[in-house]
Amino acid sequence: MSATMKAWQVSRWGLANLKVVEREIPRPGPGEVLVRVRAVSLNYRDKVAVEGHEAPYGTPSPYTPCGDLAGEIAGVGPGVEHWSLGDRVSANFYTRWLDGQAAPDMDVRLNALSVDTQGVLAEYAVVPAPAVVRAPASLSMEETATLPVAGVTAWSALVTLGQLKAGQSVLLLGTGGVSLFGLQFARMLGARAIVTSRSAEKLERAKALGATDVVDTSRHPEWASQVLELTGGRGVDHIFEAVGGDSYRQSVAAAAMGARISTIGFLGDTEFTVPIGRLIVRRIVIQGLSVGHRRSFEDMIAAIDLNGLKPVIDRVYDWKDVPAAFGHLERGPFGKVVVSINP
Amino acid sequence: MSATMKAWQVSRWGLANLKVVEREIPRPGPGEVLVRVRAVSLNYRDKVAVEGHEAPYGTPSPYTPCGDLAGEIAGVGPGVEHWSLGDRVSANFYTRWLDGQAAPDMDVRLNALSVDTQGVLAEYAVVPAPAVVRAPASLSMEETATLPVAGVTAWSALVTLGQLKAGQSVLLLGTGGVSLFGLQFARMLGARAIVTSRSAEKLERAKALGATDVVDTSRHPEWASQVLELTGGRGVDHIFEAVGGDSYRQSVAAAAMGARISTIGFLGDTEFTVPIGRLIVRRIVIQGLSVGHRRSFEDMIAAIDLNGLKPVIDRVYDWKDVPAAFGHLERGPFGKVVVSINP
Amino acid sequence: MSATMKAWQVSRWGLANLKVVEREIPRPGPGEVLVRVRAVSLNYRDKVAVEGHEAPYGTPSPYTPCGDLAGEIAGVGPGVEHWSLGDRVSANFYTRWLDGQAAPDMDVRLNALSVDTQGVLAEYAVVPAPAVVRAPASLSMEETATLPVAGVTAWSALVTLGQLKAGQSVLLLGTGGVSLFGLQFARMLGARAIVTSRSAEKLERAKALGATDVVDTSRHPEWASQVLELTGGRGVDHIFEAVGGDSYRQSVAAAAMGARISTIGFLGDTEFTVPIGRLIVRRIVIQGLSVGHRRSFEDMIAAIDLNGLKPVIDRVYDWKDVPAAFGHLERGPFGKVVVSINP
Amino acid sequence: MSATMKAWQVSRWGLANLKVVEREIPRPGPGEVLVRVRAVSLNYRDKVAVEGHEAPYGTPSPYTPCGDLAGEIAGVGPGVEHWSLGDRVSANFYTRWLDGQAAPDMDVRLNALSVDTQGVLAEYAVVPAPAVVRAPASLSMEETATLPVAGVTAWSALVTLGQLKAGQSVLLLGTGGVSLFGLQFARMLGARAIVTSRSAEKLERAKALGATDVVDTSRHPEWASQVLELTGGRGVDHIFEAVGGDSYRQSVAAAAMGARISTIGFLGDTEFTVPIGRLIVRRIVIQGLSVGHRRSFEDMIAAIDLNGLKPVIDRVYDWKDVPAAFGHLERGPFGKVVVSINP
Repeated sequence: MSATMKAWQVSRWGLANLKVVEREIPRPGPGEVLVRVRAVSLNYRDKVAVEGHEAPYGTPSPYTPCGDLAGEIAGVGPGVEHWSLGDRVSANFYTRWLDGQAAPDMDVRLNALSVDTQGVLAEYAVVPAPAVVRAPASLSMEETATLPVAGVTAWSALVTLGQLKAGQSVLLLGTGGVSLFGLQFARMLGARAIVTSRSAEKLERAKALGATDVVDTSRHPEWASQVLELTGGRGVDHIFEAVGGDSYRQSVAAAAMGARISTIGFLGDTEFTVPIGRLIVRRIVIQGLSVGHRRSFEDMIAAIDLNGLKPVIDRVYDWKDVPAAFGHLERGPFGKVVVSINP
Repeated sequence: MSATMKAWQVSRWGLANLKVVEREIPRPGPGEVLVRVRAVSLNYRDKVAVEGHEAPYGTPSPYTPCGDLAGEIAGVGPGVEHWSLGDRVSANFYTRWLDGQAAPDMDVRLNALSVDTQGVLAEYAVVPAPAVVRAPASLSMEETATLPVAGVTAWSALVTLGQLKAGQSVLLLGTGGVSLFGLQFARMLGARAIVTSRSAEKLERAKALGATDVVDTSRHPEWASQVLELTGGRGVDHIFEAVGGDSYRQSVAAAAMGARISTIGFLGDTEFTVPIGRLIVRRIVIQGLSVGHRRSFEDMIAAIDLNGLKPVIDRVYDWKDVPAAFGHLERGPFGKVVVSINP
Repeated sequence: MSATMKAWQVSRWGLANLKVVEREIPRPGPGEVLVRVRAVSLNYRDKVAVEGHEAPYGTPSPYTPCGDLAGEIAGVGPGVEHWSLGDRVSANFYTRWLDGQAAPDMDVRLNALSVDTQGVLAEYAVVPAPAVVRAPASLSMEETATLPVAGVTAWSALVTLGQLKAGQSVLLLGTGGVSLFGLQFARMLGARAIVTSRSAEKLERAKALGATDVVDTSRHPEWASQVLELTGGRGVDHIFEAVGGDSYRQSVAAAAMGARISTIGFLGDTEFTVPIGRLIVRRIVIQGLSVGHRRSFEDMIAAIDLNGLKPVIDRVYDWKDVPAAFGHLERGPFGKVVVSINP
Repeated sequence: MSATMKAWQVSRWGLANLKVVEREIPRPGPGEVLVRVRAVSLNYRDKVAVEGHEAPYGTPSPYTPCGDLAGEIAGVGPGVEHWSLGDRVSANFYTRWLDGQAAPDMDVRLNALSVDTQGVLAEYAVVPAPAVVRAPASLSMEETATLPVAGVTAWSALVTLGQLKAGQSVLLLGTGGVSLFGLQFARMLGARAIVTSRSAEKLERAKALGATDVVDTSRHPEWASQVLELTGGRGVDHIFEAVGGDSYRQSVAAAAMGARISTIGFLGDTEFTVPIGRLIVRRIVIQGLSVGHRRSFEDMIAAIDLNGLKPVIDRVYDWKDVPAAFGHLERGPFGKVVVSINP
């Protein structure tokens, strides 16, 4: 392979500063692999990182963004077993969290791809070997690239932490990447999936994906009462909360006895407020979480391959159209936005 | 036995209206038992109920308050097995919740002693048989009467839901009944117990009970930083939150990776607000709960008998001094306030 | 309604002694309901009970067999809430086990329908109210009658105790009632189902029901090696063991790391023997279980209604053909054998 | 440091062939550390390994035995963070199992210290960095060396897998290393510990360590009936089974409803046989396990430091007396046998 590669990069924080640069292909050190990147998906946090807001965690500068990759093993560093050239792979967001509980200091030592390391929006990327997972045999590289953050977040919330049971119900607020994985996983697990959106057209697409019920929040801004009505007053067993702020009042109102509210983001507000009395009498659990461990990723891949689940990609962009892809992300895609690299 | 008994009662809501009345001894119906009450402990919610604030749940009027009882079986209704006259017993707060998950409608159909039934601050009380538990062999009637609400709440939080492990740490805010049970259980389970109070004298007593560390909040109103310092920056694994409001900001700040905040009351405020980012990166669980099931009560009794644990009673009052006992409750006792009945 | 009813009954133990008798319709006592029975399904243990082998548990004599019923509420005893005349219901096998852990003495005080009570193969039956569950809205009475033992056993093993995850694999030995529920639930939960049988025709039917893979044990008596081959050497995550004896050697050989073997019967032998070394290095769990609690039944019903799952009935027999139905049971049905009563 | 070190070694399998040799001090490779060994404890499996019975797993030859070490970091290989020269450490038996579930192939790729790597009975040893844990601040090097196999096995069984609750009961068969850790942990967790032994003197020592009850199996070879008597017929909640064979019949007889039998060894027989009926009606769990993950080790260390628990060492041997130490092991020590190295 040639000695140099192309990479998207910001030298100064800001989406407007994203540029393609030519760099030396990095070499994998001890315990690392080199991946020939084939596809990358975008997450909201990539935009946040490009704007420099993750710098407190140690984001390098100049900075190549993005952590969600799919590709092939192109080299292995000293001491690396298991992987061979050409293996189709992806990588876990947390590069040192293999299974079980998060390390006690994982809030300050993230060891997270493209947070405290260089990102992967490049022709080649070096990844710590413990993070690497075998790509699902049933998915394309573009589909595989959607999994590491959005897929693993939904799987961790519903399966690893939530132990969702068939016959229970899940409420998905909106139709972004995590929500649609939540919808698809819920249905795969035999559970009910209720989806909200302000767009009637997106709700139609959610139904086509298997949503059991939908709530049009442009017509029902007080969506909690709709959810209670749909569930015979019982409420839902699991809610994905990525909004924050006032949304929690409605989430708590819509929560069933013993329900779980997975706190996975703060798109609307950086805090939330809830009434204690209802939390107590309904024995509600609010669980903060962020992506998950490699074992969750591997378990999810097994389920995807077995059940033939196809991630929802709103649009695949060419390598040169990364700025347009970020623009799409900001407008609120239906599912995931993916960049294809040298297909 | 005589046909009538004495009972404390309010005909109009309000602590000032508590009076002793003479009433017929009730007869146990199908599936009920009659208990000769020997001791009753007071909880903050008894005050709330006497003031009429639980009327939405179906509190009867006139109303005899209190649910925490210890006594002897004095009669059994049709279809009741297991219990014999003279058996020393107590009763679970939720009279139909035996084990496992709460019923989906348990927020509206509480089936809770002295909430939607008459209370037990009387010489005799009728109790649904499924609620009855055998009193610990190692405790007096006064000590037994402290268990149903404060003891079971602490046990449910730490053991049933929290699965506290030896070597972990628990933070108890204040020195009320639930906090001191939390302290004693934590130590019994091999865990670390950190206690806060505004009173240096109460902190001394907490230490004498086994508290590993104490924080004087009159000197350290920003107690979270003290807790972080005591734990080497790691934070605590479990927090009992009965305060609400601004206290949660400190609780979240003091919480370790994967920590659990048990929301068990709202002494200070009926809502709380938390920063989402920290909840996410520390993967914190906030769990609403209220007392627990009969199995937790029975498990707790086995542990108390085996380990010789003695509940902390601040003071035992005579039957005639119930108003003084409620007064003590409002001033903030160290542990439990108990009323002894015909000892 | 008339004062008498018809019931199948044995006065002396033995299938050959089953006869229809005319008896007074029983009256529900405190805490009981009367059910107009519409359908009953047969289980292997019904045969065992009719032969008198459950007498040590307190089977009454004369004895009406069977516990799996579907019907309508025809009367309620004193103190019974919730149920109204005409409600379509079924009943949990363990009449006092509502949720959570089994009572410490549930091995000697079974409180099980048709074990230490009269059975339900009659026009009317009295059932303890705590056992009653609402029938699935989506199933007929015949289909509902298949659920209490076979359905709840499979659900308890896979979901309540086994927490089966999508992408995992389940091995079902044979095509009896529990196995086919196991197959259908596994698929509903997104898991892989591998079914064994000596009959190629039954394996075809299993495939039609969704079995991912099948093993013909008439061609492969050493089925464990086939299972290992099908799973790339990894083994299966969950096995239903109702055979016993030598079958366990193969089950342990076919078990994946951390696998669970649910011990649910002893059709072949009353003991089993396993090699300790493999149990240890594969960290295998062998879990004895028998049916389950009412909450599992209710959770299962919610899942059945939501997912439109239809239990597999091999054949529905008329009331008068009960002996033929038991004969079918002994020959090994594909799924369940049901008796319809006054349809 | 000098270029060479002393090590115990066998060139041909067999305890009689153990000899001290002079070897080059190994150098830590990528992802490895060098430990100055201060103490080593012996386990039954070390004898098995020296006799060559672990060769199928890849034991090297010539072979230095033992995996339980305590010592100080004396060097770090490329890519190793966290550790500094002089840090007091021990190491987890499974060198790649950090937390959560065992890897699917961990039965064939053990990655276990002194099984498929060289052992540590030497002045220096190279250990994979992921296996290293910080030694408890409250223990000596000799005490620390007792922990990796016996301590972690007991902790994994009781805490990680068994979730033992205060008030429950544990049965320890014999007074070897794992049993005594089981006894001490059970008491630390507020549980009851019942110990069996054929030696009245060892039972006295067990009582002095906190055993709640003891059973002298020389007087009561049918110990299960004694255990049932001690528990009022209820049975025990957790049993450590390291014997196998006929012992399981008694273990199953002595097991309470829902009890857990941790299968941790095969000192007496390589198989066991159990009656299925009792396994089913008592809902007993038999769990195979072998040591545990690093997180269990770290959790155990936190509990030991907090509670001041001191491991039971029967005798500390000098470096030169290794053959005598193995002899002691074969005679059945009370707790652990330790070799001190250059103290």
